[in-house]
Amino acid sequence: MGQTISEDDSGYWVVTNGQSVFLHQGELPLGEAKQFNLTGKQGFLIGEFENSKVIAIAQTRDKGMSPLRPLLNLDPVLFQLIGKAVQLIEFHISHKYCGYCSTEMIHSYHEWAMLCPNNECKQRYYPQIAPSVIVAIKKENKILLANHTRHRGEIYTVLAGFVEVAEKVEDAVRREVMEECGIKIKNIRYVSSQPWPFPHSLMLAFMADYDSGEIQCDKKEILDADWYDIDNLPNLPPYGTIARRLIEDTIILCRDTTD
Amino acid sequence: MGQTISEDDSGYWVVTNGQSVFLHQGELPLGEAKQFNLTGKQGFLIGEFENSKVIAIAQTRDKGMSPLRPLLNLDPVLFQLIGKAVQLIEFHISHKYCGYCSTEMIHSYHEWAMLCPNNECKQRYYPQIAPSVIVAIKKENKILLANHTRHRGEIYTVLAGFVEVAEKVEDAVRREVMEECGIKIKNIRYVSSQPWPFPHSLMLAFMADYDSGEIQCDKKEILDADWYDIDNLPNLPPYGTIARRLIEDTIILCRDTTD
Ligand SMILES: NC(=O)c1ccc[n+]([C@@H]2O[C@H](COP(=O)([O-])OP(=O)(O)OC[C@H]3O[C@@H](n4cnc5c(N)ncnc54)[C@H](O)[C@@H]3O)[C@@H](O)[C@H]2O)c1
Ligand SMILES: NC(=O)c1ccc[n+]([C@@H]2O[C@H](COP(=O)([O-])OP(=O)(O)OC[C@H]3O[C@@H](n4cnc5c(N)ncnc54)[C@H](O)[C@@H]3O)[C@@H](O)[C@H]2O)c1
Repeated sequence: MGQTISEDDSGYWVVTNGQSVFLHQGELPLGEAKQFNLTGKQGFLIGEFENSKVIAIAQTRDKGMSPLRPLLNLDPVLFQLIGKAVQLIEFHISHKYCGYCSTEMIHSYHEWAMLCPNNECKQRYYPQIAPSVIVAIKKENKILLANHTRHRGEIYTVLAGFVEVAEKVEDAVRREVMEECGIKIKNIRYVSSQPWPFPHSLMLAFMADYDSGEIQCDKKEILDADWYDIDNLPNLPPYGTIARRLIEDTIILCRDTTD
Repeated sequence: MGQTISEDDSGYWVVTNGQSVFLHQGELPLGEAKQFNLTGKQGFLIGEFENSKVIAIAQTRDKGMSPLRPLLNLDPVLFQLIGKAVQLIEFHISHKYCGYCSTEMIHSYHEWAMLCPNNECKQRYYPQIAPSVIVAIKKENKILLANHTRHRGEIYTVLAGFVEVAEKVEDAVRREVMEECGIKIKNIRYVSSQPWPFPHSLMLAFMADYDSGEIQCDKKEILDADWYDIDNLPNLPPYGTIARRLIEDTIILCRDTTD
């Protein structure tokens, strides 16, 4: 899958250690390999953006490493490719050794998979994607918004959580809402999806209606949650997140109901 | 998470090596631990079925091991719990050693996760769930059905495939259809989901309409594919699969269009 980079190979360079990305003067490096000291390194072609290749390289640098999150304000297509690069390199690093037998693994030639070369084992690992649900809940013309412990600062957003093993997606939506806020919901409708590289989620986004129960927060995850009037909303997550998309869709739905 | 089984602990016993399940006289063992020689073993509580606990135990036996697939004709709720048991035990076995540093890992006390105890590593792994798409495609009152290389025998079914890293689910649907049959689709609508423990997929099921292109099979995956009239269908996958559900829904839609 990988190839050795020559000095005039050119494109966007995602130089990553699996959690953070190298920025050159605050920007994702774009240009020839030799400009960024990448000649001879092992590179993985991830895709193309505006006629330039996007190439992933596993490397940590002393200076210029940035977390992924600030790059969210780049073009969404470029951000998606950067997220893909970061996740695939992280997959590589996190599967250096076989989990069954501890033998050092090799990269498949044909696909993004790590193979155990031990003849008595021969196991194969694929990159992990963690399916997660996220749901906007409407009650008359109000929306349920919560301040999560994982958000430092005063952002209020919709509820989310990971799908469990052997769980139907719709059951995960019901379970997360019950666990985090203690209420029952109905009319669960799928809206859209979004790959989310923090660290490797696939967001499955739903809308639902309030059914019954009083809000009771799980204090480990939720600091505060309440029904918000659409004309009096708290600080919301930024545009570009599927959380914000769900909130905006719900606002439209509430206005329709009010008319 | 685990607990030592005492002789009068009772329930359904999913004794598995991660790929196959022990059957007693052809049935899933139900009763006291001592009946099945399970006293003293490490057990994991998976859930409850008809007031009996369902308990998973990692063990291979010389006799009576069966693949998971024949158990598909059990009650769907029980099958789901068996699938969960098999996947969680497999997760355990496949993450004995840390993929970053090869240190032997320990099971978290709080959740289904394996932790690396090496102080310079401290990584954490969660059970893998592989999101997959499956889609029924309608063209006037015909449905696209394909005979896959992975199905020995003459079963014709809808198209399916794994979601890729950093890929939106709807894009995965479009890509799989293009790769496997060379056609474009439109009106992609989400229908439902199904956990599928072969070996750890989460099926996200869609319906779509034909847009353009001629069928051109990818011969590595598809032996044959064609548009089938709903009054003249080939051998279909069994009831209980989400593939069959999509086919039945499409038949109803076609009949509605014909009326
Ligand atoms: N794109 C968006 O708009 C948006 C908005 C909200 C949340 N999210 C994402 O949704 C995901 C879930 O959100 P949450 O933090 O509220 O989850 P959550 O409520 O399910 O709880 C997080 C806990 O789940 C456990 N966990 C971590 N990774 C796991 C995995 N792969 N499988 C199973 N359990 C795991 C850990 O114990 C962690 O503390 C995260 O990836 C988050 O970044 C995205
Ligand atoms: N429940 C149902 O009705 C139903 C019907 C059809 C398929 N399925 C399931 O859908 C899934 C996908 O079907 P498919 O076999 O046509 O897939 P596919 O067309 O994407 O191709 C399979 C290939 O994908 C690769 N692969 C295997 N596991 C992977 C993973 N976790 N991530 C990425 N790539 C992986 C391998 O190279 C494998 O040969 C399978 O789990 C299958 O059992 C379920």
